[in-house]
Amino acid sequence: MQLYSFWRSSAAFRVRIALNLKGLEYGVIPVHLTKQGGEQMSSEYASKNPMQLVPTLMDGAANIHQSLAIIEYLEEITPSPALLPKTAIDRAWVRSLALDIAAEIHPLGNLRVLRYLLKTMEVTMEAKEAWSAHWISLGLQNLEKQLSADVRVGRFAYGDQPGLIDICLVPQIFNALSAKIDTATYPTLMKIFDQCMTLPAFIDASWEKQIDAEGLNPAAPPQK
Amino acid sequence: MQLYSFWRSSAAFRVRIALNLKGLEYGVIPVHLTKQGGEQMSSEYASKNPMQLVPTLMDGAANIHQSLAIIEYLEEITPSPALLPKTAIDRAWVRSLALDIAAEIHPLGNLRVLRYLLKTMEVTMEAKEAWSAHWISLGLQNLEKQLSADVRVGRFAYGDQPGLIDICLVPQIFNALSAKIDTATYPTLMKIFDQCMTLPAFIDASWEKQIDAEGLNPAAPPQK
Repeated sequence: MQLYSFWRSSAAFRVRIALNLKGLEYGVIPVHLTKQGGEQMSSEYASKNPMQLVPTLMDGAANIHQSLAIIEYLEEITPSPALLPKTAIDRAWVRSLALDIAAEIHPLGNLRVLRYLLKTMEVTMEAKEAWSAHWISLGLQNLEKQLSADVRVGRFAYGDQPGLIDICLVPQIFNALSAKIDTATYPTLMKIFDQCMTLPAFIDASWEKQIDAEGLNPAAPPQK
Repeated sequence: MQLYSFWRSSAAFRVRIALNLKGLEYGVIPVHLTKQGGEQMSSEYASKNPMQLVPTLMDGAANIHQSLAIIEYLEEITPSPALLPKTAIDRAWVRSLALDIAAEIHPLGNLRVLRYLLKTMEVTMEAKEAWSAHWISLGLQNLEKQLSADVRVGRFAYGDQPGLIDICLVPQIFNALSAKIDTATYPTLMKIFDQCMTLPAFIDASWEKQIDAEGLNPAAPPQK
């Protein structure tokens, strides 16, 4: 399998973690989202991913986009170790929290959205940063509320094995830290984050371990 | 089952269609998103849905939020008629297009986002409408590109039975029509939309058939 990836893309980061947790071999093809208007805008990449977003997973002749669709696919073709719980109701809970991140927080901080705010709407840099901080903080507050009150939470978001919520949470915390958001008000989330970051599957998928990482010291520990 | 719903919410609309296609009995509890700052902000509703977004599905004691998580749950507890294809690769394709709508187009046009633009960022009404039109048009263009080029498309988005893509597409087209976006450039999408709107499952889930619909003639045909 080949993964079209960008080191800082949260969606690509999720898929890298899932591939690592499943122990699947894959190559990374970097797609530079910020260079020369973005390599994802090339017609070559658009032929693989019409949304012109990363990631795209190539499995043989098939190409699959949308990180959550890719992860469900990996779960179906390689069921073990499972990233989703066994019961329908718990699977729904895990998927709902994954979507709280992937469909509520992340889309509002996407590069193309921030660019639109700055270049088309011509808002100030401060207004753009306040926008990012607002949606990340609101989303993390809601996650903290849900996870701090649920008996299903263990060492990881669902029990004692890493799964789909953790896969979505960790890249979002990387973003929050990068946006200098105070994470002290999210003790449950940060405990799960710290637990995840002890595992090679998460460490190896993180920003600084990517072949296309820039402006980071590859030998440095994960940003906190 | 009970569905907390708002007539114009695309996410609630998706779940209404899915429940109807599955032939499941359910009651609707309206949550008024625009009245008095929004009924979804009440502490009573927040206890059911910490994200304070609609929909929430109550199934016995369990409450589930996030429309796509609810629909996957319905698919698991009531597999027939299937809303997802049989093979992993086709399931991935269907999920990716559903997410292209639910995680890329829809979050940017959400009520809370448009309110932030107007009230916190203080952009003009014209700038807000241009924002909405931009993301809807870009998203629909990409969907048209994908669906017009794929042999899996039949009378519906995947083959000749309605499924998850159709469930996400129809509410998005309602939004596009309401935003007065010219849909003539999306012939494949509109053909699928028209096909869906011949089915009671879609008609009965639509805006004007909801008990909480406002400012619409309940006897009128679906908006075009």
